[in-house]
Amino acid sequence: MSETPWLDEREMRAWLRLIAVVQLLPGALEGELQQDAQLTHFEYFTLAILSEAPERTLRMTALADSTNATLPRLSHVIRRLEDRGLVRRGPCPTDGRATNAHLTEAGWDVVVAAAPGHVATVRRHVFDVLTPEQVGQLDAIGTSILRTLDPENRLSALDDVRDQPLPR
Amino acid sequence: MSETPWLDEREMRAWLRLIAVVQLLPGALEGELQQDAQLTHFEYFTLAILSEAPERTLRMTALADSTNATLPRLSHVIRRLEDRGLVRRGPCPTDGRATNAHLTEAGWDVVVAAAPGHVATVRRHVFDVLTPEQVGQLDAIGTSILRTLDPENRLSALDDVRDQPLPR
Repeated sequence: MSETPWLDEREMRAWLRLIAVVQLLPGALEGELQQDAQLTHFEYFTLAILSEAPERTLRMTALADSTNATLPRLSHVIRRLEDRGLVRRGPCPTDGRATNAHLTEAGWDVVVAAAPGHVATVRRHVFDVLTPEQVGQLDAIGTSILRTLDPENRLSALDDVRDQPLPR
Repeated sequence: MSETPWLDEREMRAWLRLIAVVQLLPGALEGELQQDAQLTHFEYFTLAILSEAPERTLRMTALADSTNATLPRLSHVIRRLEDRGLVRRGPCPTDGRATNAHLTEAGWDVVVAAAPGHVATVRRHVFDVLTPEQVGQLDAIGTSILRTLDPENRLSALDDVRDQPLPR
């Protein structure tokens, strides 16, 4: 433990930026979503993933992997969305022990209404200020960090690189 | 609003990675800190900033800027740290209306004990998997995003670039 070197000046500067982005970005995304659609970012993200799934339906376990969430956390959020009529849960027709989450018509309408404002927020805070080259760098940096955060390799955010060898 | 273009494939991939890092990194940092020192990451970060300040003391407003926090959120956390004897609050000697936060000896001991394990965690999840070139890229990307998240330009995480012109 005592042999771990401290961060040098360049690393510390990058680290303070990353920490600040991690702390501040969710609030920035959320402010707009709360105002426009009374949704947390995680709720929006969950509805958006369902909206792109076949028949707007996913198994809860797959939805957890797609939203970087644990199953208990996701279940809690889905219950809230169910209370608002945006999502409906039911047994999976092909595996009775599994539970599916389905985006209702009301849920679809909420996502469709919230999406343009959300995309504008994402562009304003991220893509409007990055060069195309930096978008590629962000992708590669995020991939490397995510692989350390997801040792079981279950997150959908890494689907397209799942079978590629680890770098270094 | 309706004129905002959707994210293209490259942007969406980078975005899903960034979102996943933002959602998962705090938990990864926190798991180790909770186990080693019973601290949230934000509590550790606050104590670490104080440990590097002159006389281990900062005004609450400056500490908020250094920890990317609002004053109410910081006050809440400082109260908890005070209850554990790690921080002490008092009036600022040079401005009686301002409040200072001071790291106690017990607080110092907690930071010193937790730091090596925390640095090892940070290295494992971030710097061990990035090239030196990527560290510089992360710094630049973080700087650009932070500037949009901090329109009042008050965060200490941007101190070294505060007087530089905005890119683009």
